[in-house]
Amino acid sequence: MHRTKVKVVEEALDANNTIATANRADFDRAGVRVVNFMSAPGAGKTSLLERVIANLDGVRAGVLEGDVQGSMDADRLAHLHVPVTQLNTDSGFGGECHLDANMVRSALPALPLAEIDLLVIENVGNLVCPAEFRVGEDARVMVCSVTEGEDKPLKYPLMFRTCELVLINKVDLLPHLDFDLDKLLYNLDAVHPDVERMLVSAQTGEGIEAWRDWLARVAAPEGVHA
Amino acid sequence: MHRTKVKVVEEALDANNTIATANRADFDRAGVRVVNFMSAPGAGKTSLLERVIANLDGVRAGVLEGDVQGSMDADRLAHLHVPVTQLNTDSGFGGECHLDANMVRSALPALPLAEIDLLVIENVGNLVCPAEFRVGEDARVMVCSVTEGEDKPLKYPLMFRTCELVLINKVDLLPHLDFDLDKLLYNLDAVHPDVERMLVSAQTGEGIEAWRDWLARVAAPEGVHA
Repeated sequence: MHRTKVKVVEEALDANNTIATANRADFDRAGVRVVNFMSAPGAGKTSLLERVIANLDGVRAGVLEGDVQGSMDADRLAHLHVPVTQLNTDSGFGGECHLDANMVRSALPALPLAEIDLLVIENVGNLVCPAEFRVGEDARVMVCSVTEGEDKPLKYPLMFRTCELVLINKVDLLPHLDFDLDKLLYNLDAVHPDVERMLVSAQTGEGIEAWRDWLARVAAPEGVHA
Repeated sequence: MHRTKVKVVEEALDANNTIATANRADFDRAGVRVVNFMSAPGAGKTSLLERVIANLDGVRAGVLEGDVQGSMDADRLAHLHVPVTQLNTDSGFGGECHLDANMVRSALPALPLAEIDLLVIENVGNLVCPAEFRVGEDARVMVCSVTEGEDKPLKYPLMFRTCELVLINKVDLLPHLDFDLDKLLYNLDAVHPDVERMLVSAQTGEGIEAWRDWLARVAAPEGVHA
């Protein structure tokens, strides 16, 4: 029974990877680089996008917003005059807790690929399943808020291990928290040694220039690759 | 294709409910009340348990710790001399993002049901799937941290809608956040009108007595029922 379940999961992930590869080929044909942007709920993904997405050194960016339901994050980004496409995961049942390659594929016809150089896919807020499903991205970025505690890399290792960049957000709150930044960095290196990391605050602007430069570089010809 | 998927999901949830009912019967036979305790990663579930679990007005409590992997939260609770049982969801593949009734059922033989009046099941940190799977609980409690923003009830309505109690945690940070508490409460009432809610801080102890009293009441003969 258990072996059967493992096999079913493996086959589902194989099928996902096949579709992710097809997405990747479509993005390549359109000359679009893609970032899969992930975090726990409320870690600050949308705020960190608001800070940089409209001002990427000439890189034309678009956003694919993944949510269980609603379009609150897409609405927040609307005033930036960047193309934003909403993708909801709740059609027909309780709602998926992640985007998979097939959901992103279903959104391709709605994406203005000819008009953008970079697509940021804001995944559903969740530290488990989004890490298991590639969607055709060039790079993965995750946000970890200092309010979440130092133990998160150890509790959700796959998420931290499969990223090219970890944004450590809300550092403006550090003086008010019982939080040991060195311990977080130690735990991060334990699961993903030397992964690139940036201390940022969407509130104060700390570290935002480095984050913007990194995102602009993904769309450069040499890029940043998973 | 889509209809098939919906049917598969509905059948899986039906099967889950059947097993949840069997768990419920076993808990009833043992005279144990059960709380399903849920939140996003890092919202403060374990800290809020540490504050109250060993001192519940004579109620003998036990904890079932659900994690993708590791036993960090169980280790944190160990010094309280309350029985803690670890349940990991990562056996054989990437890891489940929630507990379901069958996983809890598999842990029953390891639970000291004869020695406790109340079992708190600390679910995997996630606002989506844990809300979809009943495990045989009497009541559901969720923690929502003020650091996560005011929009969470609207983005994860099933979680907020299916709880008997919402703990609004980390209120000690309110002076340092750009956060509108009235807006959170308004959004909460939009998805679950008049659900019981408490403002708490595991850091300062604010609201902890009310939380302890509520939890002790679940184990009282009249109880708190879903």
